[in-house]
Amino acid sequence: MRVGVLTGGGDCPGLNAVIRAVVRKGVQEYGYDFTGFRDGWRGPLENDTVPLDIRAVRGILPRGGTVLGSSRTNPLKSEDGIRRVKDTLAKREVDALIAIGGEDTLGVAARLSGEYGIRCVGVPKTIDNDLSATDYTFGFDTAVNIATEAIDRLHTTAESHMRVLVVEVMGRHAGWIALHSGLAGGANAILIPEQRFDVDQVCGWVESRFKIRYAPIVVVAEGAMPKGGDAVLKDDTLDSFGHVRLSGIGEWLAKEIERRTGKEARTTVLGHVQRGGTPSAFDRWLATRFGLHAIDAVRDEDFGTMVALRGTDIVRVPLADATARLKTVDPSLYQEAGVFFG
Amino acid sequence: MRVGVLTGGGDCPGLNAVIRAVVRKGVQEYGYDFTGFRDGWRGPLENDTVPLDIRAVRGILPRGGTVLGSSRTNPLKSEDGIRRVKDTLAKREVDALIAIGGEDTLGVAARLSGEYGIRCVGVPKTIDNDLSATDYTFGFDTAVNIATEAIDRLHTTAESHMRVLVVEVMGRHAGWIALHSGLAGGANAILIPEQRFDVDQVCGWVESRFKIRYAPIVVVAEGAMPKGGDAVLKDDTLDSFGHVRLSGIGEWLAKEIERRTGKEARTTVLGHVQRGGTPSAFDRWLATRFGLHAIDAVRDEDFGTMVALRGTDIVRVPLADATARLKTVDPSLYQEAGVFFG
Amino acid sequence: MRVGVLTGGGDCPGLNAVIRAVVRKGVQEYGYDFTGFRDGWRGPLENDTVPLDIRAVRGILPRGGTVLGSSRTNPLKSEDGIRRVKDTLAKREVDALIAIGGEDTLGVAARLSGEYGIRCVGVPKTIDNDLSATDYTFGFDTAVNIATEAIDRLHTTAESHMRVLVVEVMGRHAGWIALHSGLAGGANAILIPEQRFDVDQVCGWVESRFKIRYAPIVVVAEGAMPKGGDAVLKDDTLDSFGHVRLSGIGEWLAKEIERRTGKEARTTVLGHVQRGGTPSAFDRWLATRFGLHAIDAVRDEDFGTMVALRGTDIVRVPLADATARLKTVDPSLYQEAGVFFG
Amino acid sequence: MRVGVLTGGGDCPGLNAVIRAVVRKGVQEYGYDFTGFRDGWRGPLENDTVPLDIRAVRGILPRGGTVLGSSRTNPLKSEDGIRRVKDTLAKREVDALIAIGGEDTLGVAARLSGEYGIRCVGVPKTIDNDLSATDYTFGFDTAVNIATEAIDRLHTTAESHMRVLVVEVMGRHAGWIALHSGLAGGANAILIPEQRFDVDQVCGWVESRFKIRYAPIVVVAEGAMPKGGDAVLKDDTLDSFGHVRLSGIGEWLAKEIERRTGKEARTTVLGHVQRGGTPSAFDRWLATRFGLHAIDAVRDEDFGTMVALRGTDIVRVPLADATARLKTVDPSLYQEAGVFFG
Repeated sequence: MRVGVLTGGGDCPGLNAVIRAVVRKGVQEYGYDFTGFRDGWRGPLENDTVPLDIRAVRGILPRGGTVLGSSRTNPLKSEDGIRRVKDTLAKREVDALIAIGGEDTLGVAARLSGEYGIRCVGVPKTIDNDLSATDYTFGFDTAVNIATEAIDRLHTTAESHMRVLVVEVMGRHAGWIALHSGLAGGANAILIPEQRFDVDQVCGWVESRFKIRYAPIVVVAEGAMPKGGDAVLKDDTLDSFGHVRLSGIGEWLAKEIERRTGKEARTTVLGHVQRGGTPSAFDRWLATRFGLHAIDAVRDEDFGTMVALRGTDIVRVPLADATARLKTVDPSLYQEAGVFFG
Repeated sequence: MRVGVLTGGGDCPGLNAVIRAVVRKGVQEYGYDFTGFRDGWRGPLENDTVPLDIRAVRGILPRGGTVLGSSRTNPLKSEDGIRRVKDTLAKREVDALIAIGGEDTLGVAARLSGEYGIRCVGVPKTIDNDLSATDYTFGFDTAVNIATEAIDRLHTTAESHMRVLVVEVMGRHAGWIALHSGLAGGANAILIPEQRFDVDQVCGWVESRFKIRYAPIVVVAEGAMPKGGDAVLKDDTLDSFGHVRLSGIGEWLAKEIERRTGKEARTTVLGHVQRGGTPSAFDRWLATRFGLHAIDAVRDEDFGTMVALRGTDIVRVPLADATARLKTVDPSLYQEAGVFFG
Repeated sequence: MRVGVLTGGGDCPGLNAVIRAVVRKGVQEYGYDFTGFRDGWRGPLENDTVPLDIRAVRGILPRGGTVLGSSRTNPLKSEDGIRRVKDTLAKREVDALIAIGGEDTLGVAARLSGEYGIRCVGVPKTIDNDLSATDYTFGFDTAVNIATEAIDRLHTTAESHMRVLVVEVMGRHAGWIALHSGLAGGANAILIPEQRFDVDQVCGWVESRFKIRYAPIVVVAEGAMPKGGDAVLKDDTLDSFGHVRLSGIGEWLAKEIERRTGKEARTTVLGHVQRGGTPSAFDRWLATRFGLHAIDAVRDEDFGTMVALRGTDIVRVPLADATARLKTVDPSLYQEAGVFFG
Repeated sequence: MRVGVLTGGGDCPGLNAVIRAVVRKGVQEYGYDFTGFRDGWRGPLENDTVPLDIRAVRGILPRGGTVLGSSRTNPLKSEDGIRRVKDTLAKREVDALIAIGGEDTLGVAARLSGEYGIRCVGVPKTIDNDLSATDYTFGFDTAVNIATEAIDRLHTTAESHMRVLVVEVMGRHAGWIALHSGLAGGANAILIPEQRFDVDQVCGWVESRFKIRYAPIVVVAEGAMPKGGDAVLKDDTLDSFGHVRLSGIGEWLAKEIERRTGKEARTTVLGHVQRGGTPSAFDRWLATRFGLHAIDAVRDEDFGTMVALRGTDIVRVPLADATARLKTVDPSLYQEAGVFFG
């Protein structure tokens, strides 16, 4: 049995831990051989591989990134993509594929598996934690830890200068990182994409904080939008060519708060720091277990499935389920956090 | 409504986060008053209290320890203990109690609630994660992170000197910290209280590691025991007065490995560092949610219950369930980790 | 003897450690009383004080920020400022002042001391490490550690995506943070305000890195400028109202690199995270020693001086010296780092 | 020109950073070739080498340990050692040696250089910071940071339980780690090898701390000794065979404090965690600069010297000076810290 492995999409701490677990168990317990495909689906598409054996996975557990490289290449959108992937797998004598990635990467795996008979097992990966069918994805805990440490540091600066600090964290479509790091960091407001925010209300929270001689921290997910937001954002954040400016909602919000409350406000955009570097212990543990169970699914020939976390158990779910819909923050959960606003 | 709060048992990162959440929601949403009891059950027993209001919980979210103090005092074992607790609650006009603690503290709450009509809600707390009825307890993730960072650091020293490093972590009755930090840290052997280990097998793992020019890390829970252990330990770890020596299984094991393999071995005992200091983001999030749901249980007059984590939900379970039996590492879970040994 | 203490200018980890050391030694060894002035020079100007005794400084050593608050208020620029400061000191019976701050705060202290007979001792503080007369200022080591950790994390993301990552760090006039964190983080280019950079050369370094299948990290101080920079920046970084855009040199550079090399480039602006939060061990040690020696200078009536680090010794230098000129990165030191570029 | 490199003695964060800087500058600027000797002086003694080029030093900057391995082998104590070292150097066509190590490793280099005409340049390395002729050695700052973080964590546990916590840190002959981490961590007593401590005085400090409802942290260097210590220690810390027990001064002291004050006391021995893992930013910077200047010394044929830090400059000093005497903590410096005791 020869198993191919690939990692697709954005960087995420824990990818290497999955790869290591897959290979260690596959080689030692099942006697499998492995082929690493380089840069996600680009590897099978362009027949670009790297050797993948026990030696290749030594020492990679604590390291961020992926030794296989990554890309957003989509064979379904490439000319003759399916055939080329199949040709590569045939040429390389690869019997099954483990695809580690997010919505896009797993979506491809789901279709290749369902419609084209390619034997795939998926491992869910997203910093944003917005994949259905699993309680958590690895990388998320690391991102939340990094964002929380940053908020911890920003509190003292806010206090010393009696300033508002707006912290923009990742989360285009789901506010999980904002919610968790905001709660853990003691933010005075948390704004998420799932619910449009009212700038006046945010300013009210900000002012109530100053009244007791504390300085507010506002955590905002990059995808959060103000009520009536399209109009508001249009004028302020498109550059002179009509392109979206790199500076996002965080900067816009800080300016609005300054304008409306008269208090100084500053923005910190955490950016890529949230998705690189060594994984937290939780993410290493989750990624390792995902890897061990993914190779078990291959051995069981349980293709078309994805490993997932349910409570403290690793289970298998249909690949199609995982990408069927985005897992967003439940309104009741967001409301629960509201007691700390202001 | 006046609610009493106490924290009992060993120190654990996240206690302050629970207290803060309880008070913030209780005061702001339900208009409750609070009384802090000092040093666990000693507080109600000896009528020793501290003021507990919004001001008292400001800034405590990221801090380790507990602003209420802790102790192992057990009113059930104190003369006339039950009556003295009841008297204090009456005198202080405390209508309900939130008890934050482990097996002992919650065991008292279960009996006071079930047999003596004292209205109690419990919040589970243990570094060791060995309480039934909840997926995780806060403090555990912090402990695992600290142990994992230590293992990361020890790897390079082991390699540079081609030495065995034995890391003793917490876990008297359950091996959760050892299992999680050992997996996350890439240990070459993990020894837990749930399964007696075979020293020869451990030495085999150690030697196989050296054969490929790597140096082994052995993670051992403080409560782990060798096969035929009582006899073995008797001679080596009791001091001349027949008392258990402070140096424990880690040191004993390092000496045994040295003796049997001829390789240098050193021990690191992580000790109290694992249970102090600022909580991880996960533990702050879990502790905060436990606090919010505990005060909801009080409002719902759902006494005799304990809050618990199930997947990503906070649920309520009978207090008695929590302490009915120890949650130990399942053999299949331990076996899963075995692929990385050696 | 009653001693006033104030902290001015931008936030900086270690301020509280200085305050604590001043008060502990002043009270315990010399029997002094203390008055805390709130928000830098605004305190004496507006007679705004906080109690400052042993109890007030308990537990503040590891905390970022300043319990005294800070501001950029300058009494020399306030109407009748000198007289108002003198009045406050007389009214409060403050015999000497310890001013903890950067160029501006100490510049005021130097003039008040030299021209107006106010008895001042200075403690140098700047994240940027650009004060003359001292080897290091506290806060700098913390900032460098934070920037280095961020660079560590960004490396793996750069590699996984084969992207350029531009990291903008603090340093308007001096490149110390960029130089130290760039060296410590293994950056492939470091750009500092002291030397205008050649964008083509930077692109050359970037491309040479990709040739060996690695991805480059470019560390740029916020005050760094390209050759012929004014013209270049004018078009790109002023907004439509002619104001300086918040997005700075980092973003500009990433776009230029993309445009010229065709490689994807991203920017991370570390911002305020660098100047908040708990100080590193070095900064706590340095700040504590500065505090101990500042109160000794008061006792010795050695006014008009500032404490400074020379090697491992704390010495006293004239306040005027400290602010006479900016301490910038020596060209030879910058050249030394050049071996790692590309 | 072919240059040999070796690393000897105990593990120390920053060794890899030195090796990388030496090789990068040697190859890129001077066109040198390199030979890595394995395991300190054992390499030249037994003609055991590893390839050392640009590729071999990629990615090692942030990693603890040493890619060359280490040992305490001393060729001066090996039969025919000098001749065998010379033979290896001749056979390998090595023209000069860079020896990175502490007192022992550099002592060998000093004699080989002075008496036997082997062209050596030294780079000082010791966790303990006890080498003369340099302000700091790399590894020390990392160790102090780790110890300080541990003390931070232990404070909250001490407070919660109103216990004494004794923290034993490295430092057999010099108390630098204890002094710096004790000051930075806010210890209530710091005990160093340079000055015998009075147990009654320590107990006095402990008790005065409890009087104000705080719990004391005592930091003790592993080499610290009580007054009249030999006698005291003899009975308690030698095992039944007369060997020194692994448990050291920390445990002994905790027991004494318990016995004399009646307060609970616990010990944490930080051990090897202090000397492994990724170096701090300061240590990476210092180690990198040491490496750059060591290869410059080779190019200048300035043999028999060692690089050293003086203020912010790297200078060269005679190898013999470095090992002439131990750099211990100055009594006045220790006394300065005393204001925080009790």
